[in-house]
Amino acid sequence: MSDIQTYAQTNAPAKTGKIMLVGLGPGAVEHMTGRARAAIAEADTIIGYVTYVRLVADLIDGKEVIKKSMTEELDRAIEALDRAKQGKKVALISSGDAGVYGMAGPTFEVLFQAGWTPDSDIEVEIVPGASALNTCAALVGAPLTHDFCAISLSDLLTPWPTIARRLDAVAYSDFVVALYNPKSGRRTRQIQEAQRIFLRHRDPNTPVAIVKSAFRPKQRLEFTTLEKMAEADIGMLSTVLIGNSNTFIQGGLMVTPRGYANKYDVAEGERSTKGGEQAGRSLSTGLNGWLEAIRESGKSAAELAVEYRLPEDYIAAALAAGPEEDIAESAEAEA
Amino acid sequence: MSDIQTYAQTNAPAKTGKIMLVGLGPGAVEHMTGRARAAIAEADTIIGYVTYVRLVADLIDGKEVIKKSMTEELDRAIEALDRAKQGKKVALISSGDAGVYGMAGPTFEVLFQAGWTPDSDIEVEIVPGASALNTCAALVGAPLTHDFCAISLSDLLTPWPTIARRLDAVAYSDFVVALYNPKSGRRTRQIQEAQRIFLRHRDPNTPVAIVKSAFRPKQRLEFTTLEKMAEADIGMLSTVLIGNSNTFIQGGLMVTPRGYANKYDVAEGERSTKGGEQAGRSLSTGLNGWLEAIRESGKSAAELAVEYRLPEDYIAAALAAGPEEDIAESAEAEA
Repeated sequence: MSDIQTYAQTNAPAKTGKIMLVGLGPGAVEHMTGRARAAIAEADTIIGYVTYVRLVADLIDGKEVIKKSMTEELDRAIEALDRAKQGKKVALISSGDAGVYGMAGPTFEVLFQAGWTPDSDIEVEIVPGASALNTCAALVGAPLTHDFCAISLSDLLTPWPTIARRLDAVAYSDFVVALYNPKSGRRTRQIQEAQRIFLRHRDPNTPVAIVKSAFRPKQRLEFTTLEKMAEADIGMLSTVLIGNSNTFIQGGLMVTPRGYANKYDVAEGERSTKGGEQAGRSLSTGLNGWLEAIRESGKSAAELAVEYRLPEDYIAAALAAGPEEDIAESAEAEA
Repeated sequence: MSDIQTYAQTNAPAKTGKIMLVGLGPGAVEHMTGRARAAIAEADTIIGYVTYVRLVADLIDGKEVIKKSMTEELDRAIEALDRAKQGKKVALISSGDAGVYGMAGPTFEVLFQAGWTPDSDIEVEIVPGASALNTCAALVGAPLTHDFCAISLSDLLTPWPTIARRLDAVAYSDFVVALYNPKSGRRTRQIQEAQRIFLRHRDPNTPVAIVKSAFRPKQRLEFTTLEKMAEADIGMLSTVLIGNSNTFIQGGLMVTPRGYANKYDVAEGERSTKGGEQAGRSLSTGLNGWLEAIRESGKSAAELAVEYRLPEDYIAAALAAGPEEDIAESAEAEA
């Protein structure tokens, strides 16, 4: 009787069901996290694409297993909600990270549609994992040491002009780019269009790596260039990594320098700071140094916009904000 | 004797030393992969930033441990090479993923400088982990379900105009953006400038999440908007996630819809395809549908460029490539 009263008095209902969105990483068991394995072990029901279910076969004995095909993300989320409402613990498993083009999005979309809130009786946990970006990068060298982005070439849910606009923007601004879903049996022209857009801004010799089935038995790496990218063997299970203007391939490895060469001269076992630069401080062409330089240049915002390939109104606004905004940090930098 | 001959006959020298670049994920032991733990156990020497060494204290008993401060990446790589040359197995440990703004870059830079090649007697292995992007996203909901990018606001090695150009490009083209190294004691204006650039293109109410020390004891989440972002509590250990134009915050969760609403009407437990759309196929506004629409519009490339916010020369080239390039896939799509 007192138990019943206590239950009734709490503001939140006791959690009964649970949905766990589990990222498996690349797929090889040794690259799963402890929490991912524990979440699968804890679950009553496992829902996932057939290939991923097979990867955790040793953990799912005696559990309900619902295998779904690739395109049924919403159905998987609906099934998960259905089981969780019955008080079950459900593991929705994805390769890579469940949050990156994975099941986390459709699951919350379905939950919100059904009127779910985080303080309802169904708990949701997301178990992070290494995404394709990270695992493919680990195999090819160190391509992602500088600013990067991920773009899916799938137009199943995204209008092409949105995708094209993103490709153009990041090609122009020199990101390292990972293309997800680059090609399928039906979608073969998207990669050609991506190449066409990139070639507007980038050197045809820009290094490109194509990684298929990373850390799985059929793993395959291919290095090529932007100019030859569209002719390469690219499929549903490939991730395409396009370097930035500093990325190079050496000894079968793709590496994007972090930028130490902007500040240091490095010889074997030794390094010295370049003239005008200080270890542990912003570059001389960092924000403060750049603001000072453009102020002192005597040039107009229009001239500076051309010189730095930045919008004229941004340069005008940064100049108008004046040096006072950075007094505090300048003082500290001189301490 | 025959053993020695066999050794001499192989083309590659036997590996003696080894450098393992190990990504720990967010830091909590349960989120490390099996391979990351095994690599640390296998190592003779552990090199890393003090905080990360502390996270694996239980695994490093009896090993040489070299703790380094945050700014000494090149020194850490030089030490690793030095030990590996002596035949030692060295684990260079990073939080997150060693490839994402991590130790993989500086290590290969130092190795190449020293004349190392992959077939030399020092083996290099990169052990992928979930990066800050993934772990922060897992805590706030599902912000990365659509195209995203990572930009570091640190100008210690990168000129500000490069960073500003990237911010402007991705703000314009509606990426979800993760800002790494958003602020430090010395660097306080960079986040203000990032906000200024984003507000040129994005709604001031765009959702922003700030995640500090994800999955660690001092973990802290804050939701705000683009307009108030620069006033939020942001530090060295924060990652800032800026949503795209569809991202919303509901029930304390930040979610970017994947785009199912473009194709389906979803009610609880049911879904139906919208008029003109087919399950498992490209959207009617996907590449082929869009090419057909612009061809049939009778509009000039200049007019279409304004309408779709794409470069005029790209539209002209896509039109000039003609429909023949996509005959194969159209035929298949109709099958």
